[in-house]
Amino acid sequence: MSLAIICPGKNANPWIEVLKNLDPDLKIQVYPEINDPDLVEFVMLWNHPKNILNSFPNLKLISSMGAGVDHILTDNSVPDNIPIVRIVDEKLTFSMTNFVIMGVLNFHRQLTRYQEDQRNRIWDMSNPEIDIKVGVMGVGALGSDVLEKLSFMGFDVVGFGFSEKTDFPYPYFSKEKLEDFLNEVNVLVCLLPLTPDTEDILNLDLFSKCQPGTYLINVARGKHLVEEDLVIALGKGFLSGALLDVYRKEPLPKDHPFWSDKRIQMTPHIASVTNPKAAAPQVVDNIHRIRSNQPLHNLVNRERGY
Amino acid sequence: MSLAIICPGKNANPWIEVLKNLDPDLKIQVYPEINDPDLVEFVMLWNHPKNILNSFPNLKLISSMGAGVDHILTDNSVPDNIPIVRIVDEKLTFSMTNFVIMGVLNFHRQLTRYQEDQRNRIWDMSNPEIDIKVGVMGVGALGSDVLEKLSFMGFDVVGFGFSEKTDFPYPYFSKEKLEDFLNEVNVLVCLLPLTPDTEDILNLDLFSKCQPGTYLINVARGKHLVEEDLVIALGKGFLSGALLDVYRKEPLPKDHPFWSDKRIQMTPHIASVTNPKAAAPQVVDNIHRIRSNQPLHNLVNRERGY
Repeated sequence: MSLAIICPGKNANPWIEVLKNLDPDLKIQVYPEINDPDLVEFVMLWNHPKNILNSFPNLKLISSMGAGVDHILTDNSVPDNIPIVRIVDEKLTFSMTNFVIMGVLNFHRQLTRYQEDQRNRIWDMSNPEIDIKVGVMGVGALGSDVLEKLSFMGFDVVGFGFSEKTDFPYPYFSKEKLEDFLNEVNVLVCLLPLTPDTEDILNLDLFSKCQPGTYLINVARGKHLVEEDLVIALGKGFLSGALLDVYRKEPLPKDHPFWSDKRIQMTPHIASVTNPKAAAPQVVDNIHRIRSNQPLHNLVNRERGY
Repeated sequence: MSLAIICPGKNANPWIEVLKNLDPDLKIQVYPEINDPDLVEFVMLWNHPKNILNSFPNLKLISSMGAGVDHILTDNSVPDNIPIVRIVDEKLTFSMTNFVIMGVLNFHRQLTRYQEDQRNRIWDMSNPEIDIKVGVMGVGALGSDVLEKLSFMGFDVVGFGFSEKTDFPYPYFSKEKLEDFLNEVNVLVCLLPLTPDTEDILNLDLFSKCQPGTYLINVARGKHLVEEDLVIALGKGFLSGALLDVYRKEPLPKDHPFWSDKRIQMTPHIASVTNPKAAAPQVVDNIHRIRSNQPLHNLVNRERGY
């Protein structure tokens, strides 16, 4: 009876430390040293090698090591009958929201313009603010928190998502109303889950329907954005700039055009980094829940993809 | 019976437009064309020439054209018995708070570091956040709003002011506890009014008592800061950086060392710009109040200096 941690390229030690403290009896095996695959009942995954789950005949629970589960759902060999859970962490929300708000405020208050003015010793007090209305695509735990915080700060906000919603506390547009949603806003924040519906959603067709000069913030997944289309949309003025934290290939290749594009502000996938101290207890809790036949927390709905 | 507008170097036209709409009967004279000083009962001031108020024998009310009144109180010729009122404007608060939060977040999320990494095509995911605790000096309408918004966003905040306070909703340090206050925080926001007590308060002695690497945000008045001391404090590591919106001399002279100091982010006094549409109605309202002997709004206490 053991937990296998499979996160190649990621340091598992901070997780192991917290897990051992919480459940000293839990036997932990770390990929690639999984010597007793028959004992594995629980797995914790982050970018695992495809098909590896077939090696665990006694698997009972799959835990993502982050908020996203696209890395799990894109592996067709993941058994249908095994529950998948993910991390929902206040600290993740805190970091994501504050990163997004940073991007929103830097556009609203034209940080780039003032940085350039400073370099050129220019004192220009004219038009210090760009009036904004912020649209958030994806209104789960993260998107809703962004809407709530920005609204409290006094900004106009609207939400967009794939499902119908009633009683949503902010103006909300569902799937069929994407164009109306885009007409409303001049700051576009992508916090969608990555699913077949949302892959490549940030493309030239969508950008061409934005208000001219819209500012894009993508903090969800690199595959939401057609990267060549962003450069074209910036050139055509559909968009005026972008803050990107995620990319189709990470680390971003050294010869990628984004690095030197002054209209794009980049960060290296650090908007919200899962903190083992907050996340590991959720994994342990769900292990205890499955052992005692209690309902799991943060269970993933495979149909919806999150 | 007329209103004199005295704001050399500032465009009075947007104010006049709103004032005329609100009170078409109000006679308005604009400095330097004040041909009937005897008729002047009300003045609106922004950086007026000292001693000019002596020319108005029938003066009844002095309105600042902004939130600050230091420009009025430093004129010793301002008659003691004439009430002074100032602007308290939600839009001023909105702008000031969001400007400050921008500065706080850019420090917390190390925007400058990531901008440099982007220029150098460096992908470095380590330590994406600096843990912060924000101290706000000056807890009037503006400072309190900054505390409220940052607290709602999940940040630890503390306030500092010259008066004693009970029932303040955040940890609060008064005058004698300045050192304790500085020990608590690593982001220091100055939103104090400019008074004899607070002039030059941001000096080397204060910086030397800060936690090493503290980040300074001055959005109050240029005279709060001893500018040479900031450069020394940055050199010694007492401070790690600063966001400045105000300066002792504005526009900042072209040869000032701040322009080229990479540790300093500058903006040209645009954190919060009084909007005539919001402010002029307050001036008119107070004129109507004084005519009908009603209590004035936002009356300045000369002892406190704001």
